[in-house]
Amino acid sequence: MTAISYTTIIEILGIITFTVSGTLAAMDKKLDVFGIIIIGFVTAIGGGTIRDILIGSTPVAWMRDITTLLVILGTGMLSIFFKPIFHSLQRTLLVFDALGLGLFTIIGINKGLAAGLHPGICVALGTITACFGGVLRDLLLKDIPALFHTKEIYATACIIGGATYVVCLPYLDQRWCELVAIIFISGFRLLALKLNWRLPNTQ
Amino acid sequence: MTAISYTTIIEILGIITFTVSGTLAAMDKKLDVFGIIIIGFVTAIGGGTIRDILIGSTPVAWMRDITTLLVILGTGMLSIFFKPIFHSLQRTLLVFDALGLGLFTIIGINKGLAAGLHPGICVALGTITACFGGVLRDLLLKDIPALFHTKEIYATACIIGGATYVVCLPYLDQRWCELVAIIFISGFRLLALKLNWRLPNTQ
Amino acid sequence: MTAISYTTIIEILGIITFTVSGTLAAMDKKLDVFGIIIIGFVTAIGGGTIRDILIGSTPVAWMRDITTLLVILGTGMLSIFFKPIFHSLQRTLLVFDALGLGLFTIIGINKGLAAGLHPGICVALGTITACFGGVLRDLLLKDIPALFHTKEIYATACIIGGATYVVCLPYLDQRWCELVAIIFISGFRLLALKLNWRLPNTQ
Repeated sequence: MTAISYTTIIEILGIITFTVSGTLAAMDKKLDVFGIIIIGFVTAIGGGTIRDILIGSTPVAWMRDITTLLVILGTGMLSIFFKPIFHSLQRTLLVFDALGLGLFTIIGINKGLAAGLHPGICVALGTITACFGGVLRDLLLKDIPALFHTKEIYATACIIGGATYVVCLPYLDQRWCELVAIIFISGFRLLALKLNWRLPNTQ
Repeated sequence: MTAISYTTIIEILGIITFTVSGTLAAMDKKLDVFGIIIIGFVTAIGGGTIRDILIGSTPVAWMRDITTLLVILGTGMLSIFFKPIFHSLQRTLLVFDALGLGLFTIIGINKGLAAGLHPGICVALGTITACFGGVLRDLLLKDIPALFHTKEIYATACIIGGATYVVCLPYLDQRWCELVAIIFISGFRLLALKLNWRLPNTQ
Repeated sequence: MTAISYTTIIEILGIITFTVSGTLAAMDKKLDVFGIIIIGFVTAIGGGTIRDILIGSTPVAWMRDITTLLVILGTGMLSIFFKPIFHSLQRTLLVFDALGLGLFTIIGINKGLAAGLHPGICVALGTITACFGGVLRDLLLKDIPALFHTKEIYATACIIGGATYVVCLPYLDQRWCELVAIIFISGFRLLALKLNWRLPNTQ
């Protein structure tokens, strides 16, 4: 398996799980089928779209070919027809979600580095790529974005893993850095879930 | 009347009706005059602005000359001063709204095709152009966007009409395709309203 | 002190006060530390980011070097650790906020003029630059944006001051116009606060 194919596979898995997280949340709010698909779509491509708009990489990624749109439509349809199965798979989906989180962070950082941006800005860009699809999902569903108040470790994993990645990149082989960073972010996220790590609030 | 002038006239009618739909919603929420004008503005230009940002066509359309801004300001002022009249015209405005929906879909699709995007992506782009002004209006007014939960046929008309348009375009004269697609989308929307067609939700 | 340094200083003061206005609002909503920093960040750079996206100036301003990000991070940390002090300084902060409002309006207008846009569009762009960080803050915190319903004179100061600026610019020295417009907008805002000027709503 080549280096390209493993990122493509994880990226598609990431899009699928982000779509499912959107459609499940939309079904909980009793939206119609069109609304459910749109929320799934926004959750899956929102972070990458904001990233591309901020750095001026247009047309944005999901518009360049039809693959992403078809994957999202297919996933959305399946999650509507097999809603109980997807609900029962939520724990399994968290693993893919964590993998997607790691991969989307690194994809975002690499795009920023390629555009010649400061490494610190690139870490912010990677975190936006990974997290802001979920922020848009919550906004459209009229919730305060979960990212900001659940006190779960989510963006923190992206920031720590992403910062380590840009620090190590000049000294080590890029493919190894990517792989280790993705595993680190995903693992950190899953451990945080398992062990219920939380950020402090200010009370 | 030339081909250009009929689209320009319908486009301005579309902007006017979208502005009115925004200002009426904002007055229901008891915003101040500035807030009312801004909501009207965002409703009218929101979809086209998101479209232009996604494909990288900047400055976005409404910034290229002062006409759109003046039309929206004038319409907003009138709808504030003659609020009862506009309320009583709401059924008439629905016809213009449906025409605007059709025209904005086709304008969005044509912009996407001109940018060399996949026809399926162009249908999504046309639907975004037509529908996302209303989504932004609802977001700013702190409602779950009506698009997602009223179960009215709205975006569905754009998607079906838009898809038919890009399929027919290679075989038929563009002007005829545009005219037929606009009439189809508008008529579909009005029929759906009249006959109370709805999308299923998932319960 | 050169012309550049006085705008840079006021711009950083503007970013600091806008960050504080975001973090204080986020702490009121009991977000976690990450959410607080993000809301401060969005409040500070939101208006300028929307401006840059609309005119196609990418990467957007805050991504071009690390300074803005560090100023916001530092300010956000301080406002979390010294929350009571910042709360007691809120009246003082309003002066910087008003200065930031004036400066951000003029920066936005100048960017629009440099891009060759119509002066009326530039006034809209300056107002967006100054006001839409606060709109995004309120959206993320699930409030109807204060801009639209508090009936405070805020955007109105930007519009009047900005319009006067673009009218005078062809006849007078740019530096003087800028200085006078910034003082006018800031002063108008502070007077409106002091004297409780309000816009009418439509009831």
